[in-house]
Amino acid sequence: MAIKMYDLAGSDNNRRFSPFCWRTKMALAHKGLEVETIPWHFTEKNVIAFAGSERVPVIVDGTCAVKDSWAIANYLEDTYPDRPSLFGGTVGRTLTRFYNTWADGVLHPGIARLIVKDICEHIGPADVEYFRKDREARFGMKLEEVCAGREERVNAFRQSLEPLRQVVAAQSFLGGDAPLYPDYIAFGAFQWSRAISSFVLLEASDPINQWRERMLDLYGGLARKAPGYW
Amino acid sequence: MAIKMYDLAGSDNNRRFSPFCWRTKMALAHKGLEVETIPWHFTEKNVIAFAGSERVPVIVDGTCAVKDSWAIANYLEDTYPDRPSLFGGTVGRTLTRFYNTWADGVLHPGIARLIVKDICEHIGPADVEYFRKDREARFGMKLEEVCAGREERVNAFRQSLEPLRQVVAAQSFLGGDAPLYPDYIAFGAFQWSRAISSFVLLEASDPINQWRERMLDLYGGLARKAPGYW
Repeated sequence: MAIKMYDLAGSDNNRRFSPFCWRTKMALAHKGLEVETIPWHFTEKNVIAFAGSERVPVIVDGTCAVKDSWAIANYLEDTYPDRPSLFGGTVGRTLTRFYNTWADGVLHPGIARLIVKDICEHIGPADVEYFRKDREARFGMKLEEVCAGREERVNAFRQSLEPLRQVVAAQSFLGGDAPLYPDYIAFGAFQWSRAISSFVLLEASDPINQWRERMLDLYGGLARKAPGYW
Repeated sequence: MAIKMYDLAGSDNNRRFSPFCWRTKMALAHKGLEVETIPWHFTEKNVIAFAGSERVPVIVDGTCAVKDSWAIANYLEDTYPDRPSLFGGTVGRTLTRFYNTWADGVLHPGIARLIVKDICEHIGPADVEYFRKDREARFGMKLEEVCAGREERVNAFRQSLEPLRQVVAAQSFLGGDAPLYPDYIAFGAFQWSRAISSFVLLEASDPINQWRERMLDLYGGLARKAPGYW
């Protein structure tokens, strides 16, 4: 039976834009596990309350519900040890933590400040109301102000990615010759942006963009086929 | 026969302040390899020319000279595979690259902007002349200007370490229950600062500082016993 996954969706249900859900979808594909995604919207908290969560991803594997992308990755690794490893062993799993905290603390905020307003164009009225209220309280300003001047600021964002750039310039994937979960962590952020904004985060010649293209090709173009801009 | 290592030193020869040399010294201790350090000063390029390098660390292991801390770590891992692993396997080595690029691109520049001027108080006149000329050209300003306002700026620096903080708050070392080479990469930066500046980078209660204390205790207090400020 396919694993069920609640997946953040736009109002058309097809546009899937959560960076955390993308981490999980890529991890499921890496493990070769069948998944049935269920479009979920910001205000449908009641739908995932059974899992003790207010956020997605949430997966349901048989009788087992798991929330939080990091917990899900660990669950998949431990539950399906005979399938391709997401971490490449105990040390790999341990060293992946820093990729997670770096993505959450540096990559996501950096991207949010460039594209967060564009989310409102792809979600329904109730979701827009919730999303604006929640995020504008966090940022302390209107989402349009958060994104103001992004054309001038994008170079500083690109510069902030230099540690990532140097690695994917030297090897095909963060995981080496083949992708591992750290790739899915970083890629989820770019896929989030791709899904909801036409704003181009990376120059075509940037080694990070070339790595992103390789990621888009994985698993039969799983991520490339998803509705998105660039 | 002990491995020889050229180690950046102050004018008193005892104060050893290169973050890259600290990576290597901790790696040698991790491997349980005996080392004889040779104090080296910025202007002694001719002394290490035999290794094709203008910078330290340079190690000499029998008839083999190796330069560059990353290359040295790889050399030690490959040459002494039966001693404790620095990377915990192939995947660990691959995933360590990002720690290296993050330290070089984020941690080191962040610390330099707070303490670089203090180096001049610990090196001889010829080294001061070289160091100022080289670094002031890079920064485009006097070293005193680089460090100006550091009391106000240190909080932003501490904030920039949040990805590191979250990991060492959750586990004893970046490597998990025991240190691995990623710990030495990050620690080297703090040991550099400790050696040449009384400016306190971290609050005592910061999980990063508590991790740093654990690092200072390793290998019989190897790093703690080295001349330094805090």
